Amino acid sequence: MGSSEWQFKSRFEPELPVPDVAPRKVATGFLPVIALDRKSSTPLHRQIYDIYRAAIVNGNLAPLQKIPSSRALAAELRISRIPVLSAYAQLLGEGYLESVGGGGTFVSKSLPDRFPSSQHRREETPKVHSGPRPISSRSATLPSFIGAPWLVGRGAFTVGQVAVEHFPFHVWLRLVSRYYKSVRAAPLYFSDPMGSKDFRSSIAKYLRTVRSVKCDADQIMVVSGSQQALDVAARVLLDPGDSVWLEEPGYSLSRRVFMLAGCRLIPVPVDQEGLNVAAGIRLCKNARAAYVTPSHQFPLGATMSSSRRHQLLEWAQQVGAWIIEDDYDSEYRYESSPIASLQGLDRNSRVIYVGTFSKTLYPSLRVGYVVIPTDLVDRFAATRLAMDVYPSDLFQAVLSDFINEGHYSRHLRRTSLLYRERREALVNAIAEQFGSAVQVQGEQSGLHLVATLPEGLDDQQVAKRAAAKNVWAWPLSTCYLGRPVLQGLVLGFGSTPLAEVGPAIRRLNKAIDELR
Amino acid sequence: MGSSEWQFKSRFEPELPVPDVAPRKVATGFLPVIALDRKSSTPLHRQIYDIYRAAIVNGNLAPLQKIPSSRALAAELRISRIPVLSAYAQLLGEGYLESVGGGGTFVSKSLPDRFPSSQHRREETPKVHSGPRPISSRSATLPSFIGAPWLVGRGAFTVGQVAVEHFPFHVWLRLVSRYYKSVRAAPLYFSDPMGSKDFRSSIAKYLRTVRSVKCDADQIMVVSGSQQALDVAARVLLDPGDSVWLEEPGYSLSRRVFMLAGCRLIPVPVDQEGLNVAAGIRLCKNARAAYVTPSHQFPLGATMSSSRRHQLLEWAQQVGAWIIEDDYDSEYRYESSPIASLQGLDRNSRVIYVGTFSKTLYPSLRVGYVVIPTDLVDRFAATRLAMDVYPSDLFQAVLSDFINEGHYSRHLRRTSLLYRERREALVNAIAEQFGSAVQVQGEQSGLHLVATLPEGLDDQQVAKRAAAKNVWAWPLSTCYLGRPVLQGLVLGFGSTPLAEVGPAIRRLNKAIDELR
Repeated sequence: MGSSEWQFKSRFEPELPVPDVAPRKVATGFLPVIALDRKSSTPLHRQIYDIYRAAIVNGNLAPLQKIPSSRALAAELRISRIPVLSAYAQLLGEGYLESVGGGGTFVSKSLPDRFPSSQHRREETPKVHSGPRPISSRSATLPSFIGAPWLVGRGAFTVGQVAVEHFPFHVWLRLVSRYYKSVRAAPLYFSDPMGSKDFRSSIAKYLRTVRSVKCDADQIMVVSGSQQALDVAARVLLDPGDSVWLEEPGYSLSRRVFMLAGCRLIPVPVDQEGLNVAAGIRLCKNARAAYVTPSHQFPLGATMSSSRRHQLLEWAQQVGAWIIEDDYDSEYRYESSPIASLQGLDRNSRVIYVGTFSKTLYPSLRVGYVVIPTDLVDRFAATRLAMDVYPSDLFQAVLSDFINEGHYSRHLRRTSLLYRERREALVNAIAEQFGSAVQVQGEQSGLHLVATLPEGLDDQQVAKRAAAKNVWAWPLSTCYLGRPVLQGLVLGFGSTPLAEVGPAIRRLNKAIDELR
Repeated sequence: MGSSEWQFKSRFEPELPVPDVAPRKVATGFLPVIALDRKSSTPLHRQIYDIYRAAIVNGNLAPLQKIPSSRALAAELRISRIPVLSAYAQLLGEGYLESVGGGGTFVSKSLPDRFPSSQHRREETPKVHSGPRPISSRSATLPSFIGAPWLVGRGAFTVGQVAVEHFPFHVWLRLVSRYYKSVRAAPLYFSDPMGSKDFRSSIAKYLRTVRSVKCDADQIMVVSGSQQALDVAARVLLDPGDSVWLEEPGYSLSRRVFMLAGCRLIPVPVDQEGLNVAAGIRLCKNARAAYVTPSHQFPLGATMSSSRRHQLLEWAQQVGAWIIEDDYDSEYRYESSPIASLQGLDRNSRVIYVGTFSKTLYPSLRVGYVVIPTDLVDRFAATRLAMDVYPSDLFQAVLSDFINEGHYSRHLRRTSLLYRERREALVNAIAEQFGSAVQVQGEQSGLHLVATLPEGLDDQQVAKRAAAKNVWAWPLSTCYLGRPVLQGLVLGFGSTPLAEVGPAIRRLNKAIDELR
């Protein structure tokens, strides 16, 4: 084939460098797995042809995917370019590949007719599996991720969302750019499983001031959010079979952490003073831990009273239990005076304090923190190392600057005013539309409130109807581990602009009417 | 105090806005926890004075920390500015606060003499704790994070490091800026626990081409790295007490995942063909899973032979076991032809395939992936939701563009040539300095190699001496779960520039001489 090899040369020359910005979604020339047998009687060009043809027919190389230049492939395989050029020429000739001007060579959009597209991806993973396929008993107990109707969409009143349109991305990007322009090698290689020292110092100073948390930077572990904080705490503190007090009603994602840890879940009722400690002691005095949201109970919104806080701390010290304080949205208070954290009241270091930036900045940032009693720091670090080694560096560096340069406190003040307005608009719209038929509670702070429904209404049916009208409320009944005591809706107001509040509440009213 | 209140007014006026870039490390005016008792006989200005004085003396407000403007504090407390001004005036007068020109009011550098600094931070968390403080039996088994001498520093030959100086940060920053300038709200609120669809499609296409992995985007979960991949896999697949095959010697961080899962660890010897499957069957035929690094066994560097791969897959199907394939640095091969992944050979979907960007980009990026058998996807998603909900959005979006626009394939080619040189320099330097006394293995691929030491040398002593000379090698003996068979050093060459290789090996030689 000596001559024919060369007649195609022009089609491969000149080798243009891949443009700096290629059309998106088109992967460039990754080298496929090509193991050549140099001793084989099959010539190299034929081996290369066969491997590419198979990869294209079975879909491992996708239509329009770029293939390496003959030079790159020859270099990688440490052979001359001649057999590569020959194989490419044949594949081009037979329509498996197409050459786009100087832009390189790609897998053809459509395969040669004699390969019906049905044959495409025939190699895909089998959908039926044989033999035993055991999974762990605990992961088997977790509810499926496939969401309920009120969880599948986003819009008015979605719980846990914030006013991202007010996040100062211009400032943030400036800090990010500064980071990448003066990036140091060390933090790119490795970081402490606890997180970066600078960032932990900023968090410690912030928590001492704003939440009266008693802590030094050494006690702070940076995590991806309150969920990972609960997960690491559960794995350090709890053995399978240990009993844990959970607020009833409560936050379902936190419940799953303790399910996954194999714990016995003890639902303890909450009232206007927060967790009913006496009831908890009656139900299971010797629980190993209590999970609480004292600043703004999720979902009912109560602030735990001073006497309950002291009862809880006394109980923990008496039986040797741990208290996990989830302070998820304590930054926003509209009526009541700010209250100190439970951790700040604790004289026996029995509180593990959990906080997050998901509510004050935005959820997909994935940054939170745990404040760890000094004697547990080493176990938390060792456990976290086994879980995911350490947190990503960028956001720690940028968020330190964001806090230290005053952007965080300013953002908190700005959003606090904003949420106060949104909250008032929501409370007023509910009163206007429903009068006394619907009771609002938990609106003094945080980013959500609860609207209890009139007798005889099923909150899951209401939520389902509402979702169909682009109103995304959580049914209160789904926050109960046991039998629901109240029927109502959890409404988030963080991401709902003023103008949308009224119309959305009117749509909710319609949804309820349809059920009457 | 009517008049005195006003004589200080000028010191607080005008209220300058916080400058856009304040001096670093100085937190701006976060509002402390101030609960005023309006019914109390103590006047408000006195209550505010007392609260601040206490916060400053006990260190909850740190020296030089900025305090809120009188206007901001009055607004927050919903009182007139007069009592605030009065309290600030008294605190300034007594030296607890100092006012810096128009820059605002700060906690004094040094407290008034009558409060010796010993009283500072007297509120800090107690170092002695009373009562039972139980932790989980599994976290108790994990080794402390406090590192061995060869782990505490970084420099020549540190294992797991890469050539960050060759990472195209200018390109990366351009993609990051593009992201923040056109940021959409939805991904800031929430993402799939599996990760973003676009990114998973890019990964799937890449893995099908480069590693012959059989996968669709639906099977891919984005994680923070191979460690989290192993953790989620262990929690989905394994119950406490289940037996797991581990390579002996092997990677100690992976071992800890299975310790934390409460599994029984079965060390299975590796040889030049990789994991000895027959030995594994003799040791524990009915293990529930095997953890393997077939492309480049850690630490010895063998590539698992074809016959061993088929034996392993047959065993797994026969006993209903899972195989966890950690393909941590398969992108870099220098001599041998590329080999397909074990997952690509598996006809029974028993392989969970784990990969990371830590070795090809840089470790603190914290991005990796798991390829999940289709029938396990829902359990993986449900479990991950309970662990940390979902991955951060930024890096997924940026890395999709980085891959789709060709930057990733280019970076892989560039670094591959670079590592080839560094590896050759290291192999030559070892031969030059030690001749036949030191044997090198595992250098055909990846970012580390193993140098076995002459009889009679203790590799931990060598590593300790070497670390003192800024040479950071891992003792091979620490990679064994049981009795070490080989004494040697694991040397990473990813982050060691050519010019440093020779001198560092000479220092290593000195360290060894000192032990003779």
